[in-house]
Amino acid sequence: MLLGRVVGTLVASRKEPSLEGLKFLVLKQTDLEGKETGGYLVAADAVGAGMGEVVLYATGSSARQTEATDKRPCDGVIMAIVDTLEVDGAVKYDKARDG
Amino acid sequence: MLLGRVVGTLVASRKEPSLEGLKFLVLKQTDLEGKETGGYLVAADAVGAGMGEVVLYATGSSARQTEATDKRPCDGVIMAIVDTLEVDGAVKYDKARDG
Amino acid sequence: MLLGRVVGTLVASRKEPSLEGLKFLVLKQTDLEGKETGGYLVAADAVGAGMGEVVLYATGSSARQTEATDKRPCDGVIMAIVDTLEVDGAVKYDKARDG
Amino acid sequence: MLLGRVVGTLVASRKEPSLEGLKFLVLKQTDLEGKETGGYLVAADAVGAGMGEVVLYATGSSARQTEATDKRPCDGVIMAIVDTLEVDGAVKYDKARDG
Amino acid sequence: MLLGRVVGTLVASRKEPSLEGLKFLVLKQTDLEGKETGGYLVAADAVGAGMGEVVLYATGSSARQTEATDKRPCDGVIMAIVDTLEVDGAVKYDKARDG
Repeated sequence: MLLGRVVGTLVASRKEPSLEGLKFLVLKQTDLEGKETGGYLVAADAVGAGMGEVVLYATGSSARQTEATDKRPCDGVIMAIVDTLEVDGAVKYDKARDG
Repeated sequence: MLLGRVVGTLVASRKEPSLEGLKFLVLKQTDLEGKETGGYLVAADAVGAGMGEVVLYATGSSARQTEATDKRPCDGVIMAIVDTLEVDGAVKYDKARDG
Repeated sequence: MLLGRVVGTLVASRKEPSLEGLKFLVLKQTDLEGKETGGYLVAADAVGAGMGEVVLYATGSSARQTEATDKRPCDGVIMAIVDTLEVDGAVKYDKARDG
Repeated sequence: MLLGRVVGTLVASRKEPSLEGLKFLVLKQTDLEGKETGGYLVAADAVGAGMGEVVLYATGSSARQTEATDKRPCDGVIMAIVDTLEVDGAVKYDKARDG
Repeated sequence: MLLGRVVGTLVASRKEPSLEGLKFLVLKQTDLEGKETGGYLVAADAVGAGMGEVVLYATGSSARQTEATDKRPCDGVIMAIVDTLEVDGAVKYDKARDG
């Protein structure tokens, strides 16, 4: 899984019928320091993530292993909202402190 | 999922039989500002996308989760046509305005 | 799917038994202008492609969705031979003209 | 599979329910000389890896082929802790010597 | 599939139990001229490859389509040992001549 920050939303009325009701969020990918790496992803939201939150996302077939995305043409899903990220002994992100 | 703009079509008469009837569209990948990133994709069309439209596409096994692509050797599918894309509080794309 | 040009062949007598009889072709990846991008792929041939032909290939699990590759350790397959490629209103490739 | 070094942990209380109990470790990817390549991964831990250990990880659907990750939206798993790595006749890493 | 040269071995005693007995080989990726491209892979060996041999490997779910790797958390497998590679009419590699 990789880290991203929720920066936006995407609305699509004409779509594969099985996607009806799925919420699409726009993520900017971040590194372990929280800096944007230049990449983005439009992901289905399985956990009720909000704007600005730091999240963990899965891609590929693993993105379909949630009730919301099962058997749907969806290759990216937000599957967790990050509370804390600790790297090399330092707290790089703490939702209560930085969120 | 990633964003692309429909820029062309591909015709192939000699192909795996299961692909008969599938429409192949050529996409140029775009970033969140709508700028082309240099990449392209030939994708199956599951939603009736038209030339110039901004679409969302899925790749890998997720590209086979539509009626049109199920069990076919297809690793890219257009699964939604974008209406609006909002990033960092700004409407980056609005089909009614920019489409 | 992406575009490639068939440039060679690969022969392997010692291989996973299920691959017996599968033909491996060497592809150079090309962009929408037909220029080589520097990448290559060894792909199974599901459509009887010939040297120099411009083809469409699928990768990952989608490469196993043909009779020739089903349940085999094969992650790339040629699934179509391109007749015409039209981009931004111009015919970039026409097999009858350029093939 | 690729090599990585365990450098941290990630905690997420709001997540897809099926991920409950899964431990997320932060890996920095390394090359065959043990140097960091700049990439990272958040992976599920299937083997009880500890901080600083050199591990082998699998991605994609293969990351779900462990009891801990089966049918979960997880696309990266630590599936082995490296004892020794020998390349071109030289022992590049020996857990007993370098671990 | 892509080409690689077997350059080493990896030993791991603590691992996912299903991997018991699987041999891990270290590959350096090569281009069509046999030059190393800078990438590496640790792959399961399904064909009894030896040090220095030029091999073909598959990744992703396709790497699990061998008896040795079925249902195991393994995302790379050596599935063939190359005898000859011919590109643009020239024999780039011949095991009997160059192996």
